[in-house]
Amino acid sequence: MNADLGAPRELTGLQRRRALYQPVLPPCIQGTRITMEFGDSTTTIDPKCADIIAQAFPHTFGQKLVHFLGPSMMVPVPDAQVKREQPPLRVGVVFSGRQSPGGHNVIWGTYDALKAQNPCNVLLGFVGGTEGLFAKKTLEITDDVLLSYRNQGGFDLLGRTVDRIRTAEQVNAAMSTCCDLNLDGLIIIGGLTSNSDAAQLAETFAERNSKTKVVGVPVTLNGDLKNQFVETTVGFDTVCKVNSQLISNVCLDAVSAGKYYYFVRLMGGKASHVALECALQSHPNMVILGEEVALSKLTLMEITNKICDGVEARAAEGKHHGVLLIPEGLIESIPEMYALMQLLLHQESDNSAQLSQIDTEQLLAHLVQAEMNKRMKEGKYKGRKFSPVCHFFGCQARGSVPSKFDCDYAYAMVSVRRHLRGPGAVPVGKPVIHPSPIDLKGKSYEVLREKASSFLLDDFYSTPGGIQFEGPGADTKPITLTIEEQDYLGDIKILQDYLDKLRILLKPGCSREILRAAISSIESANDVLKVMSVPLNAELPLYNFN
Amino acid sequence: MNADLGAPRELTGLQRRRALYQPVLPPCIQGTRITMEFGDSTTTIDPKCADIIAQAFPHTFGQKLVHFLGPSMMVPVPDAQVKREQPPLRVGVVFSGRQSPGGHNVIWGTYDALKAQNPCNVLLGFVGGTEGLFAKKTLEITDDVLLSYRNQGGFDLLGRTVDRIRTAEQVNAAMSTCCDLNLDGLIIIGGLTSNSDAAQLAETFAERNSKTKVVGVPVTLNGDLKNQFVETTVGFDTVCKVNSQLISNVCLDAVSAGKYYYFVRLMGGKASHVALECALQSHPNMVILGEEVALSKLTLMEITNKICDGVEARAAEGKHHGVLLIPEGLIESIPEMYALMQLLLHQESDNSAQLSQIDTEQLLAHLVQAEMNKRMKEGKYKGRKFSPVCHFFGCQARGSVPSKFDCDYAYAMVSVRRHLRGPGAVPVGKPVIHPSPIDLKGKSYEVLREKASSFLLDDFYSTPGGIQFEGPGADTKPITLTIEEQDYLGDIKILQDYLDKLRILLKPGCSREILRAAISSIESANDVLKVMSVPLNAELPLYNFN
Repeated sequence: MNADLGAPRELTGLQRRRALYQPVLPPCIQGTRITMEFGDSTTTIDPKCADIIAQAFPHTFGQKLVHFLGPSMMVPVPDAQVKREQPPLRVGVVFSGRQSPGGHNVIWGTYDALKAQNPCNVLLGFVGGTEGLFAKKTLEITDDVLLSYRNQGGFDLLGRTVDRIRTAEQVNAAMSTCCDLNLDGLIIIGGLTSNSDAAQLAETFAERNSKTKVVGVPVTLNGDLKNQFVETTVGFDTVCKVNSQLISNVCLDAVSAGKYYYFVRLMGGKASHVALECALQSHPNMVILGEEVALSKLTLMEITNKICDGVEARAAEGKHHGVLLIPEGLIESIPEMYALMQLLLHQESDNSAQLSQIDTEQLLAHLVQAEMNKRMKEGKYKGRKFSPVCHFFGCQARGSVPSKFDCDYAYAMVSVRRHLRGPGAVPVGKPVIHPSPIDLKGKSYEVLREKASSFLLDDFYSTPGGIQFEGPGADTKPITLTIEEQDYLGDIKILQDYLDKLRILLKPGCSREILRAAISSIESANDVLKVMSVPLNAELPLYNFN
Repeated sequence: MNADLGAPRELTGLQRRRALYQPVLPPCIQGTRITMEFGDSTTTIDPKCADIIAQAFPHTFGQKLVHFLGPSMMVPVPDAQVKREQPPLRVGVVFSGRQSPGGHNVIWGTYDALKAQNPCNVLLGFVGGTEGLFAKKTLEITDDVLLSYRNQGGFDLLGRTVDRIRTAEQVNAAMSTCCDLNLDGLIIIGGLTSNSDAAQLAETFAERNSKTKVVGVPVTLNGDLKNQFVETTVGFDTVCKVNSQLISNVCLDAVSAGKYYYFVRLMGGKASHVALECALQSHPNMVILGEEVALSKLTLMEITNKICDGVEARAAEGKHHGVLLIPEGLIESIPEMYALMQLLLHQESDNSAQLSQIDTEQLLAHLVQAEMNKRMKEGKYKGRKFSPVCHFFGCQARGSVPSKFDCDYAYAMVSVRRHLRGPGAVPVGKPVIHPSPIDLKGKSYEVLREKASSFLLDDFYSTPGGIQFEGPGADTKPITLTIEEQDYLGDIKILQDYLDKLRILLKPGCSREILRAAISSIESANDVLKVMSVPLNAELPLYNFN
């Protein structure tokens, strides 16, 4: 384990200015008096999984959703009822997953929240990730410790190691650490695997009557731990911004020289959120999302041919260059490749380790080149010789200084509780959290599809530039979030407003005609909703390459 | 050729703001009245080459250096003497080299300077690089054309193609284009090869009494066209900033996980300027400069062993991760590899094309891994298993939005004249411009050497962040320039001030004692300088890995 973890370090000018930035909290968790109300019980997205999950998590499944109330919605509470003297809390925090920008701010936000509540509260960081947790190796978080890690990238305040809390031995070690240190809470910062482990650990701790509450915080660049209540994961914004900057640089390079096709593979795990967001930011000529390949059950040869058709269409317009985005998860979405991978690759700590080993971009570049040469020989393709160049954008984005969005989001993340999502069951063994895929019926994907043909042919490249921390561009959010954010909570608000209006209109005393019209409309709405609640199996057309 | 070159395009918010930025000109070339004086004749840096160059360039070698005078130094000129009505000029401009951030601003700066002098002046861009020059394919540069290319990256305003003006056929085609279009000047924007070609073309045009004056503008990310009068090349600052951002991200990633050694290869041609600047900005654990390897005549095995010793030293401190920078030119500096390359690789348009094909980082990673495994087996190395990860940072930096420094520098570049430098001769064939190597006796290298052991062991990683366009970080210059800039012109100023003081002190009437002391001191200075002017063959110790 690295001896320098958590050590103070010298910051550059930009880092020092970033360290002075105070993240902005949402109004509902500002101040020391936070009011919340309990909502419905949590459930799984796919109702078919609810029973399985309820059986596997008897102590933790179905807890109430917590809703933090904004200042305007707070009911005045007599002073006597406000708990003034809460006993000091002891909380532990561990990095258990691949580094993602903003991870340090989760710790900082937790620390500030704990200290604001009671200066005697203690936050202990486990040094060296899960290994530190098992070995009870701690560093008490203080203002001094945080000094050079506020709003900074990396996970080097505490480091990380094996990212697993799964075997009986590991679970027992974690349990005995929490018990020995008398922890009220354990915060596990990580991605899909770590949050699955956190859910399992919470259940085990609850079953064994441990007083330590386990909370998982979704910190991963993949953006694949999202649902109606969690907009995105910590780090997704930064990584997409850095990648989009680099992709747009490659686009400008491609169009300037006019000779090469760039095959750019992006990190992001099994789901293709990073590729979708980067495509919307940088407008490359083509992007192949794993989700659409899975839906259309495309073979490797079909994908190759789609790309070649795109290259031909561009050549017909005198363009012999292009940029193609490939999510690392694509390979898993191709049925024939998935079978092969299962045979050839070792099972790693989680899928992303496995995925990043496969040079999908090189495989595709090779296949496309072979097919283009064949088409040229047969006289079908009359353009220039096809020249591919491959890139993999991996950890050069992951260690970035976090964007303002990620700084704010991570700092406030302490309030997000681990909760189960679905489809969350695998047929054999323990349930794990599955990556949330791109919603192919959602607005972001619709925007991409609308622009696909322009992206392919018009070199409609967009240059977002690097992450800016000052000036007008500093506050931009991910495009997919901006497109989607009205989708759920916003729509629920709109619906509730309509229902309120109906209630006012339809009080006793309203005319029979109005009442009949209302009953008829609402009956019809009910019928439509009943039909729509049955899962659709209709296949969506593939994102149109040409 | 791409039909869309030079077309107007939609800009992002950041690009629009950048497009509004007006580059700052140095005082000496502000306004329409520019005063200059002629200085000494140009010569070669290595006096031994002067004769060869003079023979090869009889019409262009030895022209006077031009010194632009600052406003304070301008002698008032009677209005009558100011040429009011200059005949309209017609100038052509061509991109002839790999894209480098700031290239568009050279065109913009030229355009503004021409139009300020006489609105009837015309600037013609050649579309599609040198192929466009040969085929007389032009686009008249106007405010409208420039609108979406001001302060933007890429070379897509005009594009580029083969980057060569060398064969008799090519030279004749260029000549007939310039003649047909009645050009007073031809500006060739590019790197080493393009500036060699520009020098040769200038000579040929002069020999054939063409009225077209040929000017080369050093625009290349390599930073290898620099000397006492040209601080650096256009694009070097931007590319080093983007690369340093990515390297520092990799450093943070490395220290966070503590398991991997990153071998990062950087573009930059034969010389290692990019690697040196990036090392000073991001503080990786090791960097191997081509120049120091060449000086010490290190073999591949010796380099491998040096790296392995570094890995061992770090393991002894409990560190099993690290970041190593490898300039793409390194491979050419290793004698055994150079011989092998000559056998195996095709000769490309210039060396950098050839160089970027060789995965030096993978070769070194493989050799280091084999040696570490061997040392482990023999019980010499007791650390963890050595795990390398390779990266090549190429065109993802090259297409970046230019930094403020490069915007300003490129916009003012129109005033920089092509001039010959040395050692500029090869034994057989035509003289070409050689890359300016890192000065291993210079201050920048000294700074790197001083910090080498701290870089290696202390994880003294520095995070410059991405390029900022607003706020305090926006105006930073390359570190090597800041370190070096006093070296030449600054020192000449200091020397001249001293000489002025001596002149005032030592007027007739001063005492004999003072006069004797002065003569004795100056005699001694003369002797020292005579000895120092003989080239030193003393070998410098290699940059210390451990």
